Amino acid sequence: MNCVDFRRMIVLTDGKLTPFGAKTAFSVVRYRGDHVAAVLDPQHAGERLEDHMGWGQGIPIVASVEEAMRYEPDSLLVGVAPIGGQLPDGWRGYITSAIRHGLGIISGLHVMLREDEELAALARSHGAALLDVRDPGAFDRVADGRAADLSVKRVLTVGTDCAIGKMVTALELTAAARRAGWDAAFVATGQTGIMIEGWGIAVDRVISDFAAGAAEWLCEQVADRQIAFIEGQGSITHPGYSGVSLSLLHGSCPEALIMCHQPGRTKHRGVEQPSASLTEHIALSERLANARHPCRVSGVALYTTGLSDDEARAAIDAAADETSLPVTDIVRFGCDPLIAALGAHLGLG
Amino acid sequence: MNCVDFRRMIVLTDGKLTPFGAKTAFSVVRYRGDHVAAVLDPQHAGERLEDHMGWGQGIPIVASVEEAMRYEPDSLLVGVAPIGGQLPDGWRGYITSAIRHGLGIISGLHVMLREDEELAALARSHGAALLDVRDPGAFDRVADGRAADLSVKRVLTVGTDCAIGKMVTALELTAAARRAGWDAAFVATGQTGIMIEGWGIAVDRVISDFAAGAAEWLCEQVADRQIAFIEGQGSITHPGYSGVSLSLLHGSCPEALIMCHQPGRTKHRGVEQPSASLTEHIALSERLANARHPCRVSGVALYTTGLSDDEARAAIDAAADETSLPVTDIVRFGCDPLIAALGAHLGLG
Repeated sequence: MNCVDFRRMIVLTDGKLTPFGAKTAFSVVRYRGDHVAAVLDPQHAGERLEDHMGWGQGIPIVASVEEAMRYEPDSLLVGVAPIGGQLPDGWRGYITSAIRHGLGIISGLHVMLREDEELAALARSHGAALLDVRDPGAFDRVADGRAADLSVKRVLTVGTDCAIGKMVTALELTAAARRAGWDAAFVATGQTGIMIEGWGIAVDRVISDFAAGAAEWLCEQVADRQIAFIEGQGSITHPGYSGVSLSLLHGSCPEALIMCHQPGRTKHRGVEQPSASLTEHIALSERLANARHPCRVSGVALYTTGLSDDEARAAIDAAADETSLPVTDIVRFGCDPLIAALGAHLGLG
Repeated sequence: MNCVDFRRMIVLTDGKLTPFGAKTAFSVVRYRGDHVAAVLDPQHAGERLEDHMGWGQGIPIVASVEEAMRYEPDSLLVGVAPIGGQLPDGWRGYITSAIRHGLGIISGLHVMLREDEELAALARSHGAALLDVRDPGAFDRVADGRAADLSVKRVLTVGTDCAIGKMVTALELTAAARRAGWDAAFVATGQTGIMIEGWGIAVDRVISDFAAGAAEWLCEQVADRQIAFIEGQGSITHPGYSGVSLSLLHGSCPEALIMCHQPGRTKHRGVEQPSASLTEHIALSERLANARHPCRVSGVALYTTGLSDDEARAAIDAAADETSLPVTDIVRFGCDPLIAALGAHLGLG
């Protein structure tokens, strides 16, 4: 398990200040903005962060680590998660500069900074921590289905693709559940979720034999809570990541699923392969889940970015007709329909 | 990728001379018996191997590495694959003795012998190779569905559980396809398959984000063949291993599946959790596969160990009625019904 204890982070975005280019940065600023000292992005230095992100008001955009030091940071967070997870060319300079200032480095990349001899040696000589959030360590547990016996109600966010709102949905539902008086936990299963929540396991980085075991173990850590919102990964139809998605589904044995979908997205992002329909995803997910534990989809979280409010409402109505389920865009219109559906489904008041 | 080039192996079974206790040993002796110099098992030394395995005639069972040396071995193969894959207590003695005799060590355990400081140092000083067959190395490719475009016909063996005949079925079908005049390849995806075929990747040991990528890469290695029989792993309903199974299904984009099943096995072995029915496995597998590539189950390979021939025939008839598919026990009654079905399905003469 990884813990992220830093309180004054510089978030590196380096010219990629778009929701998909810097998915991690956007989410860390959104959900842990109090702990962000500055955003490092020379192309946008001096601009207002909220003009790019829609949030993050008051957080400065700076051009260099040197300039960021005036905001008394304790760490540099690599705020991008490219496909494959390698260290982009040119970023090494920012990282070595931060290490020389004694800052911790928080990375969610597949490539492990600790295994980079130059960075590891430099970090040692400057007393700087290298935190590879994606590194699950020597995790070697095979899941045996025991999560089904936990008393905590388990809700897994699943989706028709990657990058379609599974983490944000789990985070927003956790907050809404707490407002409803439920004792709710967020369970982080990816690097960004871990950076936000402060603990978790990047399940996509666990050896495939043990990926479901990691999901099972994470559920046990919140066994004494009333309800847990488990962040899903990938999609059960994704050419590359479906195994990760199914490991989460069978390792966590959820009672309820929330299906995340973007209207009009008919191909898997990045690989450009056709995706199955929303209703097929719902049917397949329920069938797979029920092979292990009684479960159904309680509602749909629609990601309506780029649509007007009227268009978004029409898309929500269409998805509700198509699925006969409660549907909302949780960011635009709030979580109420999903919280009501989950409360009824799981017997929570 | 791992290559296994040894030609005079001592196979360690150490008192576990049963099909499930020494699954790897049984298969290596069965499919690569010409390369087995001796079986090391003090509890059964001097007994006839074929009385335990049903094959392996003429291969001696010995009590010690010392005794095995008279058969001029070049290596010691660890012939057991326990759940979790750790090195059993007491086996270290056999391994160190073999290393001191300069023998290579072939291991399919999850624990890596090369990372064991004592064994690694001893191997260096005696010039002995440590071959961790399960180690996929730094494999980091995300599958993007490209296996669907390969001209080689891809047949994946899948199953209702672990240890239910997926590897043996793929091996026997490969041999039968060659007898039918097809240019057939066997694609090894697990440690035993690699030990038998001499190359492959243990997909269950690949980081879960890259497991489908490993399956895709393996298919590319046989792209110039007419047909490939890909060894499946686990089961899409297994509490621990379903992610591995789905990674293989979506990484290899098969045209045809052969479903392996044991009549009467209603729980997943080892974890003792209920398993879905044969027909549910067929329906779910086809639905998942078709999310990526047109595919159907061509037939069922029934594992009828413990039944009389009459009982086995009745079980086969019952499964054929239940599924409306060709069904056989490939070991007891041969592969003909499945080869005929695959030939018709895939348009092979």
